Amino acid sequence: MTDSEQYMKEALVEAQKAFDAGEVPIGAVMVRNGEIIARGYNLRNTAKNPLCHAEIDVINKAAGIVGDWRLEDCTLYVTVEPCPMCAGAIVQARIPKVIFGTRNSKAGCAGSIMNLLDEPRFNHQVIVEEGILQEECSQFMRLFFKRFRKNGEAMLTEA
Amino acid sequence: MTDSEQYMKEALVEAQKAFDAGEVPIGAVMVRNGEIIARGYNLRNTAKNPLCHAEIDVINKAAGIVGDWRLEDCTLYVTVEPCPMCAGAIVQARIPKVIFGTRNSKAGCAGSIMNLLDEPRFNHQVIVEEGILQEECSQFMRLFFKRFRKNGEAMLTEA
Repeated sequence: MTDSEQYMKEALVEAQKAFDAGEVPIGAVMVRNGEIIARGYNLRNTAKNPLCHAEIDVINKAAGIVGDWRLEDCTLYVTVEPCPMCAGAIVQARIPKVIFGTRNSKAGCAGSIMNLLDEPRFNHQVIVEEGILQEECSQFMRLFFKRFRKNGEAMLTEA
Repeated sequence: MTDSEQYMKEALVEAQKAFDAGEVPIGAVMVRNGEIIARGYNLRNTAKNPLCHAEIDVINKAAGIVGDWRLEDCTLYVTVEPCPMCAGAIVQARIPKVIFGTRNSKAGCAGSIMNLLDEPRFNHQVIVEEGILQEECSQFMRLFFKRFRKNGEAMLTEA
């Protein structure tokens, strides 16, 4: 298993926590000098807060640890392609490299709908790698939406 | 003075706090049912945190007050056009309307570089109004960058 796969596996551990909490199962870790300095996962519904995406969580924690708004020697691993908010936060934090597991075809802004991480008009561009443990990352999402639909149908039946 | 100008004046009060703290002078308020429920300003350098933009601050506070990640009956007033992160957060929070004072030609994502607030491929579009107290909002920015350049030159002279 490569280093990237190892870090993505840790991001998947975080995604599992989101899944267990009934949240869209997305997890992330921030790596600096070969060490995981922050871990986080999506908690939007539980926290009732639109900012509580996995990436925002780890950027917030990492800034506290690094002691700077510039996370210039960090690499972000996240199980699913970032949304516009998280892609924008990655640019704001000057993170040089982002590695994600699977695409989000409906809202992904690191190549799917658009690519905010490699936008020449911004003052920072990010190196993006994708597809690390893609199958595991996407399977989590499929399982979640399968359960979501099942619960949704049950609720409709009960109503 | 119209209601919109009154709310923007309050956003300018917040921008003044950022200016006094030596930060890029951007302020914001969140309005719900004619009442300001949250106020905030840019504090990125002081907080050493890339997330500490005025808009993120008020969205975070407003979500706590509303008790929901959906801020569907709120209007955001901000003195300067949102960056990609803040525009993305506005979309995530399902805020229906944003009013900003002056454009950010270098990083603005509500019409300048691009318009993430009115992107048909996202699942939410935002009504945008601009130019409310434009002169006051842009003057703050000009004053800041004038002081910034002056201090920068002083530092260069001292070095």
